[in-house]
Amino acid sequence: LTRLRTFYATVAYDGTAYGGWQFQANAISVQQRFEESLTKIEGYRVPIIGSGRTDSGVHAEGQGVSFTLANWRAPADRLVPALNRHMPRDVSVLTCRETLFTFHAQRHAIAKRYRYRIRSAQSPDPFHSLYHWRVVWPLDVRAMEQASRYLLGEHDFASFQSHGSPRKSTVRTIRDFVFSSIDVLSGQDLSIVIEANGFLYNMVRNIVGTLMEIGRGKLPPEVMKEILETRNRKAAGETAPAHGLCLIHVFYDDYWFLDQYDTSGNS
Amino acid sequence: LTRLRTFYATVAYDGTAYGGWQFQANAISVQQRFEESLTKIEGYRVPIIGSGRTDSGVHAEGQGVSFTLANWRAPADRLVPALNRHMPRDVSVLTCRETLFTFHAQRHAIAKRYRYRIRSAQSPDPFHSLYHWRVVWPLDVRAMEQASRYLLGEHDFASFQSHGSPRKSTVRTIRDFVFSSIDVLSGQDLSIVIEANGFLYNMVRNIVGTLMEIGRGKLPPEVMKEILETRNRKAAGETAPAHGLCLIHVFYDDYWFLDQYDTSGNS
Repeated sequence: LTRLRTFYATVAYDGTAYGGWQFQANAISVQQRFEESLTKIEGYRVPIIGSGRTDSGVHAEGQGVSFTLANWRAPADRLVPALNRHMPRDVSVLTCRETLFTFHAQRHAIAKRYRYRIRSAQSPDPFHSLYHWRVVWPLDVRAMEQASRYLLGEHDFASFQSHGSPRKSTVRTIRDFVFSSIDVLSGQDLSIVIEANGFLYNMVRNIVGTLMEIGRGKLPPEVMKEILETRNRKAAGETAPAHGLCLIHVFYDDYWFLDQYDTSGNS
Repeated sequence: LTRLRTFYATVAYDGTAYGGWQFQANAISVQQRFEESLTKIEGYRVPIIGSGRTDSGVHAEGQGVSFTLANWRAPADRLVPALNRHMPRDVSVLTCRETLFTFHAQRHAIAKRYRYRIRSAQSPDPFHSLYHWRVVWPLDVRAMEQASRYLLGEHDFASFQSHGSPRKSTVRTIRDFVFSSIDVLSGQDLSIVIEANGFLYNMVRNIVGTLMEIGRGKLPPEVMKEILETRNRKAAGETAPAHGLCLIHVFYDDYWFLDQYDTSGNS
């Protein structure tokens, strides 16, 4: 008798070699690699659902994935080494938990956290150049942080949505904005973390592109409020490069996960 | 009137895409990329001298390089951005200082420091897999550190020299051995730093390969003393993979550097 079981896995990947998360005709996708690993384990083609797409060159430290299996009998966490055995070196499954059968990694995501990395320094870093946007000018991180305050909370973010993947509503809620840098006066090794209940297409990269104009002194921090209110993409700055972006975490309600109900101590 | 000036530069590189430091027929070398950049600045082919070779896949955070220029008139440190303008993304010049004319980065090196990285963990790390040796077994770091004590000081390291590049003498002095790890009981993210007045061919990788046999419990720490005394390569462990190795620093006497004599405050 077949008992179908649904699982949630988190996966980290270096997006450099891929055409993005989602299947496509002319490039290898991370989704394809993940499905190939599952196919080797289950013996038939297993479709998976990601929490959302990441573009070509964008990385992930915690993309969320759901899938349903017919043959797997072992505990959920045993899927981690089983999947990694078939993964290429730039994709790694981190965790796996069993869920309610109706769980869906995209529809049930309640928030996401992204990080954007920038390096402002004279000498390039040969080991991390694929993971941050390198600029040669100094950045005023305090001005950038000040500008970001206008974006906190619920707003219409139409000014920060790129063409190509329109959403029904352009209203989103930014729950958190965290800046960290070795040196706030020069912006050296700056990291910007943005958490929201959802993101429009290219929203993080368009916000970062605008913050950079403010950080280098081309625009004052107060202009961010006006840009937001115009609801016009042309008012905001350029789209920041893909390779500085990383999907850090996807949030879900706890009640989807079966181990929440397990009182025996086994998973 | 041409005034020849000699310079010392430090350079960092990700060795993944290269056939090693040194020029060769069938692969791109870091040396070639460095000389191409100098050629663009000087207008003629400039030969350079590295402190030593690094093998294919080996990285550097501080390889040392010397060269003599006929046309450069600006201060030495201005060569850093000038060179980086022509470098690929995986090679970066960090510093540049003017030296006495007879300075030679290979002959005058008095010591070198290497780091070898190992990751012992269930899930692979997709962002750093090209920079550490990943193993799936736990490592007893205290046993490895104990074994390393037998190698400190002046010894004949013939047991740790690979074929292919014999030296006149196989006696070297290891000045320092530093182990660090997130967890000494499991060996997670272990880093081994070795500093010596010189290294035989593959010496660090052969020492690390032997330490790993001890770390995973196949050999007791005391066996290191016997392996050293046999002066026989076959007694020691396998050669550790190249991509875990990084040349961190090359040491020279201060008196080679002209800025040591400069009392005006200018370089």
